[in-house]
Amino acid sequence: MSHASSDSAIMADFLRELARLAAEQTLPRFRRALAVDNKEEGAFDPVTEADREAERVIREAIEKQFPDDGIQGEEFGQLRAEAARRWVIDPVDGTRSFICGIPLWGTLVGLLDEGEARIGLLSQPFLGEVFIADGESAFLERGDDRRPLTVSDCRSLSAARMFTTDPALWKGDEKDGFEALRQDVRLMRYGADCYAFGMLADGRADLVAESGLNSYDIMALIPIIRQAGGVIGRVDGGPAEKAGTVLAAATLELFEAARARLRGEEA
Amino acid sequence: MSHASSDSAIMADFLRELARLAAEQTLPRFRRALAVDNKEEGAFDPVTEADREAERVIREAIEKQFPDDGIQGEEFGQLRAEAARRWVIDPVDGTRSFICGIPLWGTLVGLLDEGEARIGLLSQPFLGEVFIADGESAFLERGDDRRPLTVSDCRSLSAARMFTTDPALWKGDEKDGFEALRQDVRLMRYGADCYAFGMLADGRADLVAESGLNSYDIMALIPIIRQAGGVIGRVDGGPAEKAGTVLAAATLELFEAARARLRGEEA
Repeated sequence: MSHASSDSAIMADFLRELARLAAEQTLPRFRRALAVDNKEEGAFDPVTEADREAERVIREAIEKQFPDDGIQGEEFGQLRAEAARRWVIDPVDGTRSFICGIPLWGTLVGLLDEGEARIGLLSQPFLGEVFIADGESAFLERGDDRRPLTVSDCRSLSAARMFTTDPALWKGDEKDGFEALRQDVRLMRYGADCYAFGMLADGRADLVAESGLNSYDIMALIPIIRQAGGVIGRVDGGPAEKAGTVLAAATLELFEAARARLRGEEA
Repeated sequence: MSHASSDSAIMADFLRELARLAAEQTLPRFRRALAVDNKEEGAFDPVTEADREAERVIREAIEKQFPDDGIQGEEFGQLRAEAARRWVIDPVDGTRSFICGIPLWGTLVGLLDEGEARIGLLSQPFLGEVFIADGESAFLERGDDRRPLTVSDCRSLSAARMFTTDPALWKGDEKDGFEALRQDVRLMRYGADCYAFGMLADGRADLVAESGLNSYDIMALIPIIRQAGGVIGRVDGGPAEKAGTVLAAATLELFEAARARLRGEEA
């Protein structure tokens, strides 16, 4: 076994442990009565105990295993923001799915290394599924079943199965571009949150686009898409690591075609 | 045990058996390469082998157990349409979720008795969940866990968690009413297909509305909603058994408030 493979095996074990620790906090609170806070007066942005407790145990595990690394989480802010390696955590991505009982939310943990997202975890404990990018390859585990993640070979919008969380999130200048893309794809699905990126990595979907993402919404998903063979980036041409309006596709041809639509360019 | 309870226990056992038989046909084909047909030239309406084979085994089981009953299925049409009792089958509701790998599709079997939907099954085999209305009560089973289904006590739109499959399905006269309702609810989720009705019955969601439903899309779900304590009917005031544009709610107050919005009445 090469040195690189040994590193990636250690990393995969660590991600599995984070998934297990987080699930102990999230799963008992899923489909139970929840204490829902509002982060912003007037806006509906639930923060549950599951969010806080899962982030807490993930941070503790990272601090113990990699004490020099930075940590950025949705709930508890930044630690060692100047570190070359930074862990980026969304303890419960898809809190609206969570509070409606839909098992498509996920615990996201990504590792940003010298500006590049290199390691990623998407865990959906109700389904018992863990999506891992270990730095070399991406794979999906469920119980004793483990198989590689590989994107589809879809190259055209007219054949593409696409996901976005909510069409109403596309506003202002972005709205027309989204509507043009919606009409050109074979099939548009809504509401799958982070899980849509998992399905793209697994070859079940061909395109995912989201507007207005934060770092913690996307960092874990970037290496999963890339190590499954897909393409992910900002619609304005910047790296996906900068978050914002992000597009992921099974192939570069499909990425460019979808990106042109979102930017309002003619077919 | 009363005579009625005995009947409902027999019926629940039969529904579990249908769920098991259908899962043998659907689950091995979920997240596998699929043969997708187009029912209508131009429209994307996938019919999979899972659809056909699951309906076939369900029909066989009904014919054997209840040979005098009528049967109506999405794939193979009507049998004994004049019978007082008719089974209505949608072997895979949510085929678009199915082909995108999302485990929110379901196998639906309802029993229409003298014009009233009385017995219902929603099975989601990847999650291992079975929602049953046995004629007396509604319950959710997963593995060895069984618990009653009970709707929430939500009475106001501003507190309501709502589902619809796709906002683009609300067209023509119905579009403005849907948009008014969307803006008044606390939270709108998309893409959950039949599973949204399951979450309403389980108290995780408060409202579900769908436009243009066929009998087989809704018949199984009607008794699950009603026996969980909820309200379901057509937006035009007719019974849900007539299908079409259907609204389901946790309470009568919420049903009437949402129905008024969908009909374009002022707040």
